[in-house]
Amino acid sequence: MISFNQLKAVERLRELERQPIDLTKEGALNSKRIEEMVVAALGIKMLYGAERVTHEVIKNLFELAEEARVFDKMEAMQVGEIVNKIEGYESENRSVLHTAMRDFFDQCQEGTRAKEAATLAYQELEKLKHFLEEIRKQDFTDMVQIGIGGSDLGPRAVYLALEAFKKADRRVHFISNVDPDDAHHVLSGLDCSKTLFVVVSKSGSTLETLTNEELIKKHIIQKGLVPKDHMVAVTGKGSPMDNPEKYRASFYIWDYIGGRYSVTSMVGGVVLAFALGMEKFLEFLKGANAMDKLALSRSFGDNLPLMGALLGIWNRNFLHLPTCAIIPYSQAMIRFTAHLQQLDMESNGKRIDKQGKVVDFDTGPIIWGEVGTNGQHSFYQCIHQGSSLIPLEFIGFRHSQYDDDILVQETLSQEKLLANLFAQSIGLSTGKHHDNPNKYFPGNRPNHILLANKCDPFTLGALLSYFENKVAFQGFIWNINSFDQEGVQLGKVLANKIIGFFAKKRRNEEIDNKDFPVAQAYLKQLEKL
Amino acid sequence: MISFNQLKAVERLRELERQPIDLTKEGALNSKRIEEMVVAALGIKMLYGAERVTHEVIKNLFELAEEARVFDKMEAMQVGEIVNKIEGYESENRSVLHTAMRDFFDQCQEGTRAKEAATLAYQELEKLKHFLEEIRKQDFTDMVQIGIGGSDLGPRAVYLALEAFKKADRRVHFISNVDPDDAHHVLSGLDCSKTLFVVVSKSGSTLETLTNEELIKKHIIQKGLVPKDHMVAVTGKGSPMDNPEKYRASFYIWDYIGGRYSVTSMVGGVVLAFALGMEKFLEFLKGANAMDKLALSRSFGDNLPLMGALLGIWNRNFLHLPTCAIIPYSQAMIRFTAHLQQLDMESNGKRIDKQGKVVDFDTGPIIWGEVGTNGQHSFYQCIHQGSSLIPLEFIGFRHSQYDDDILVQETLSQEKLLANLFAQSIGLSTGKHHDNPNKYFPGNRPNHILLANKCDPFTLGALLSYFENKVAFQGFIWNINSFDQEGVQLGKVLANKIIGFFAKKRRNEEIDNKDFPVAQAYLKQLEKL
Repeated sequence: MISFNQLKAVERLRELERQPIDLTKEGALNSKRIEEMVVAALGIKMLYGAERVTHEVIKNLFELAEEARVFDKMEAMQVGEIVNKIEGYESENRSVLHTAMRDFFDQCQEGTRAKEAATLAYQELEKLKHFLEEIRKQDFTDMVQIGIGGSDLGPRAVYLALEAFKKADRRVHFISNVDPDDAHHVLSGLDCSKTLFVVVSKSGSTLETLTNEELIKKHIIQKGLVPKDHMVAVTGKGSPMDNPEKYRASFYIWDYIGGRYSVTSMVGGVVLAFALGMEKFLEFLKGANAMDKLALSRSFGDNLPLMGALLGIWNRNFLHLPTCAIIPYSQAMIRFTAHLQQLDMESNGKRIDKQGKVVDFDTGPIIWGEVGTNGQHSFYQCIHQGSSLIPLEFIGFRHSQYDDDILVQETLSQEKLLANLFAQSIGLSTGKHHDNPNKYFPGNRPNHILLANKCDPFTLGALLSYFENKVAFQGFIWNINSFDQEGVQLGKVLANKIIGFFAKKRRNEEIDNKDFPVAQAYLKQLEKL
Repeated sequence: MISFNQLKAVERLRELERQPIDLTKEGALNSKRIEEMVVAALGIKMLYGAERVTHEVIKNLFELAEEARVFDKMEAMQVGEIVNKIEGYESENRSVLHTAMRDFFDQCQEGTRAKEAATLAYQELEKLKHFLEEIRKQDFTDMVQIGIGGSDLGPRAVYLALEAFKKADRRVHFISNVDPDDAHHVLSGLDCSKTLFVVVSKSGSTLETLTNEELIKKHIIQKGLVPKDHMVAVTGKGSPMDNPEKYRASFYIWDYIGGRYSVTSMVGGVVLAFALGMEKFLEFLKGANAMDKLALSRSFGDNLPLMGALLGIWNRNFLHLPTCAIIPYSQAMIRFTAHLQQLDMESNGKRIDKQGKVVDFDTGPIIWGEVGTNGQHSFYQCIHQGSSLIPLEFIGFRHSQYDDDILVQETLSQEKLLANLFAQSIGLSTGKHHDNPNKYFPGNRPNHILLANKCDPFTLGALLSYFENKVAFQGFIWNINSFDQEGVQLGKVLANKIIGFFAKKRRNEEIDNKDFPVAQAYLKQLEKL
């Protein structure tokens, strides 16, 4: 395996990074550039004329992708080869098959692990369909998802993004934090007798989730109801939560579905199908599946996620930009960036390659952002005139979701929204000269736009998969494992130790002062507050 | 004015930055260090033992503060001198008097601009009190704030953080985005006849806000109601919105209150006092006022915001870390970091100093973050093992807000929450050795904790002011103007131009193809979707 910095294309790109195109030059960002720098597929257009790339940079980035054999790796992932591993070291050693969770439409290859996984996933989908039919008679109006990380962020982001398409009499809520105020706040507005609680944990051992499950059971019992009638499980087969006696229904996920990649599995499926209905949920899966297939396309002209990955690599490894702001100009996507933050940073926030060697280049950037136009009135000052260069990825839609708009001074709100999006893309890259240094904009803030017709189930599924595959492509190029998360273990171990101290105090047991003294010092500060 | 890099303390700190303390060394982070590295005041403790500082670094940072005359500058700001300016160039040339908005308790100096501002602010507070008494008879249950940026983020963050203390029969909502889906979504759940709409814009000309105001009026009329009965204005005296004929009540703000510093003015006041009642709103102001007074303290031992500012400067200018994650371990503070993102990045995301010279050092960092423990299951992988070093500022509370907790395996949820906070602070700084490179944690991730008893009105007011004053102190040390935002202008100008194109199209007017052709190229891509 050749390391990133040893790839020939990297060497050529290092030459090109010395003088990236200056978009502040008169005419550098012109209409021809906007028209030429487009990748389009599945009703989504990527407009990347405002990135600091030339056709030569793009050509070399494509060569980088080929040299890193990204298509073979994407194919290997999608058919189910063991790609979640570190060679020569103990590691998870698993397939990565979230793409199989939605591969019912265009059929995946017979005889592969992917086919097996898709078949199992389809069984769960059928189970879900029957379950939703069964509960229809009981008039459940609310569903509460209890989960954290991938069991929360992705499903929540997608639910909020598609709330405009949900059934009028159904709502979904989420409880994630071990902070007891989270559960209290959500429960206080609910009629328990009409509510189903979906407990989601692949391992069946997530501290936050199991604790909240107990809190909710207590709450259900207080209302004179039977917990089992209201509880649904989504978990791994054989996990401590795989216990039909405790849940009125159980749905399965598998070890080849990472939490942050689990939205299209039953982790997102139960709440989304409850809220949207099965038909729209299938539209959503169809969009994701179509984008997965597109990720396999060896034609650079339409492979959206690969293009996104390469532009990100240019900004990260050649322009050396440590963060990336993702800004949807769509209120519905209010929590989408929070999902992408996990997806990207947990996948590619790594320091060793797939052979266990510490890497000598930068991996996944810090992902952050809010929706537009709100962000403009918040942190854009820093993006336009701050001392850190921040690249941006915009998302925009031609039409609003509800189509409840108003003409004010001859334009619709949706038009004002889009005008702001385009204005920022241009202003950030071209900048503006001014004699007053405070009114001077240095420009050259690289950005691109993903543009689609409407934020509907199919398009959102495609966008979800776009980012999943973009992240995977970057991992392939960097030769890192985007599918494990060993970095979360240390915190868990130390937290459990401190939880043990709290338990000992409750039992009035002495704690040895040589046992984790730093933690004890913190606890002393807490007591002396 | 001596530039930051010419300060003598900076020179000495540059020496110290070469070998910052290595917290991964056995015993480097010990209980003595935790006990010694504490600043405490107003029931809030800052624990900074996990920062990469020594006593010598702290001593030099204090000297830096004195050399930069931060106390004189803080005093000048709080009494109302004109500190929002760039010398020698056209600039806003204003006082900065958000601290006067809450200076009713401990009295500010007679004969100062601050006294004048506090007197005016108190009049508005009295008006608000009467207004709330007047509307009590009408059983309004809901209030919707229409505003963006500072008129949205701060008030929303504080409302959510204090929802546990609100009146049972009152709720507050927010509409900010020009995306028409935002207003539709909020309005769809409301009974208009019981709702008041508070339109907030200092200039009375904010595009998003005025557009949403029209949308809401349309909605009110559709319900057969009279807009004026339901509309309240918060605006600058003499602004286009200062028109009593259109609003049932009007409250004033002044040009010396920046949007991002406006939470304790009527911008936050109307909705917060409506929801919490006047008494608790005053508690909140009291907390903010107490922290303002503390910021004037020339004793380094208790000046919390100054200490926070200096630790931030160490991380930014000496350890060269481009971002800062702010992580409250409190679900109630779910949007607090989004407010701080504006507060900090719009204030200190600057490239010129107060004499108009382009600075040769880094200014305000990128602020981002989510609440804990949620973040642990999202981006902490990247913080522990990624290639970018990310400093963290934690906030934690001894008690939950609702006290609706449960013992699971002998500990409360709140204890589990705190255990996680302390565990992360320790694990991030000490790291962990392991032979498997994937289980190796490099550590030295600097962090500190702000610890308080409970997230209640007084404490939250103090925390709000803590960050406002921290940001101001950093601006004083960098000699930049933290109170203007020229960087948001370019986007507005360009957006208005593109909005004009949309209007022309609606009128079927020809657009000159030489007029802003790049924008026209984007619009063509939109049409061809």
